[in-house]
Amino acid sequence: MKPRLALVLGDPSGIGPELVAKLLSDPEALDRAEILLVGDRPVFQMGQEIAGVSIPVQVVSDIAQARFDRGEPVFLALSTIDPAEIVLGQASAAAGRAALESLKMALCLAREGRVGGICYASLNKHNLHLAGMSLASELDFFAQELGHHGLAGEVNVLGRLWTTRVTSHVPLGQVPALLTVPSVLAAIDLAHHTLTAAGFERPRVAVAGLNPHAGESGDCGREEIEVIGPAVDQARSQGIDAQGPFAADTVFLRARDGLFDAVVTMYHDQGQIAMKLLGFERGVTVAGGLEAPITTPAHGTAFDIAGQGRAEVSALREAFLLACRMIENRVRRETPE
Amino acid sequence: MKPRLALVLGDPSGIGPELVAKLLSDPEALDRAEILLVGDRPVFQMGQEIAGVSIPVQVVSDIAQARFDRGEPVFLALSTIDPAEIVLGQASAAAGRAALESLKMALCLAREGRVGGICYASLNKHNLHLAGMSLASELDFFAQELGHHGLAGEVNVLGRLWTTRVTSHVPLGQVPALLTVPSVLAAIDLAHHTLTAAGFERPRVAVAGLNPHAGESGDCGREEIEVIGPAVDQARSQGIDAQGPFAADTVFLRARDGLFDAVVTMYHDQGQIAMKLLGFERGVTVAGGLEAPITTPAHGTAFDIAGQGRAEVSALREAFLLACRMIENRVRRETPE
Repeated sequence: MKPRLALVLGDPSGIGPELVAKLLSDPEALDRAEILLVGDRPVFQMGQEIAGVSIPVQVVSDIAQARFDRGEPVFLALSTIDPAEIVLGQASAAAGRAALESLKMALCLAREGRVGGICYASLNKHNLHLAGMSLASELDFFAQELGHHGLAGEVNVLGRLWTTRVTSHVPLGQVPALLTVPSVLAAIDLAHHTLTAAGFERPRVAVAGLNPHAGESGDCGREEIEVIGPAVDQARSQGIDAQGPFAADTVFLRARDGLFDAVVTMYHDQGQIAMKLLGFERGVTVAGGLEAPITTPAHGTAFDIAGQGRAEVSALREAFLLACRMIENRVRRETPE
Repeated sequence: MKPRLALVLGDPSGIGPELVAKLLSDPEALDRAEILLVGDRPVFQMGQEIAGVSIPVQVVSDIAQARFDRGEPVFLALSTIDPAEIVLGQASAAAGRAALESLKMALCLAREGRVGGICYASLNKHNLHLAGMSLASELDFFAQELGHHGLAGEVNVLGRLWTTRVTSHVPLGQVPALLTVPSVLAAIDLAHHTLTAAGFERPRVAVAGLNPHAGESGDCGREEIEVIGPAVDQARSQGIDAQGPFAADTVFLRARDGLFDAVVTMYHDQGQIAMKLLGFERGVTVAGGLEAPITTPAHGTAFDIAGQGRAEVSALREAFLLACRMIENRVRRETPE
């Protein structure tokens, strides 16, 4: 049985719709999953025109009408934006609203088990806020819509290298106080469980230190000894293959060379400096910790090239394939033997 | 006129001596400068044997005897270590002492103007401390020996990308309090002046922010607005081409792509994560801010491969060539027209 996933067009003013069209012009992608396209028909039409492709779909207005056995994507046609309001490459509340509403529909379907997971094309955070999203991030929005209350966090994936972080969009000066054994353990857990959900048998999770050279045995900061080390120990006692804390300036070299599957970072730039240099614009972001796999390309809406047909589809394809794999694993886990 | 520099063998228990021998087996290197080798003859002999080369030198016990016009390196023969005490790949106070003493001699010659600058092969910080160096770093030792009291700081160079940092070996939690307009300005100054000393006409200096996304206009930290931005403004008012603050996770991509000559970072790992991923083991460290150019390869003593003859000479060669260039610039600046 193929994984069934919702594929959401993303922000209509960015490169999302054209990339979805490009992705679906690949027969292998079409064959990989039962695809439920979610968005507005004029938006997808625009995306196809920009990409110079034409994708046969089965249009439905209610998922109950969907027939996934016909081999073509099912298009759940919404009406989230007046086509006249779409201006490629320009910020607008209307585009943000359209993105939010189609995601909301996909999340509802995921919550009801009508799809096993979601892959969405790029959102524009500024547009989401213009549209009135008061939550800090998409991830909070997903958790809210899925009724999820436990651990959740952004997981970044680039090739075979995964990262999670203990703290994210906070001033650097607040980071040390936010590092506690439970908060570090949660990020290790998130890495372990997300990688397990993606099919890793026993992921090797490296944990970065906070201070230069991981604190030099206490000479240059105590968090490694008092917080991060104990969290690593606790994770290990739970059967997680956690290691560290390691000096942040070399752990990514070792992970890049294949010694670890994931790196748990203490703060935003610790991971992002490394991932961006390694080419994270080609990577994938996973909304980790949620029941349903949700993935998206790491790049943004790329307003500067939206509508030109030259946006690169590879990151969306990676996001799509990863969601498929995670859904299959989920089904396998949840299916009684 | 060729630049005259002291080339110091570095720690005798590491890869330094063999790399110096390798470097000097290249006729182009020999031709580039008037080279004063500083160290013990048995140590250099060992280095040549490991490297499988034999370098004709003119041995002197006093620099006054040196004849640089003969085309071969002058070897200022010291006696800093009992050859029986040299154990390759092992830490020892004796090796640290030898490294310190030969450096001290080179610094003395630089202070007296007998050489224009120094290039030294790798030191081992642990050995230096075993030998009783109480100062935190080599740089402090250089400043002390040169009688230097002003601005000084480590500058890292990888290809055409240079970095300085405002804070270095301090716990991350102390970084925000250490960022002040004068301290940020000092690191910008250091970058500007070191690059100018290396021959850049008007170096383009990017300044990193401290917080995620450079503080998101104050939503995620205030240091960019209150400290870093004003320091950049002040640098510009002094005629320095400083720009920023920029988000730390993308500024290195832009610098790598040639948009800037230098990046000023706020803390150790901000720069080191990036530089190490970019291949800084092949890079060069400059003791910036001192009157005499002093350079060294960025890699360490590599105890694991010391004595095997497989250590890579390219970083030492870069350090050597950079010191030569900086000495030439210095001579040019100091020569009345």
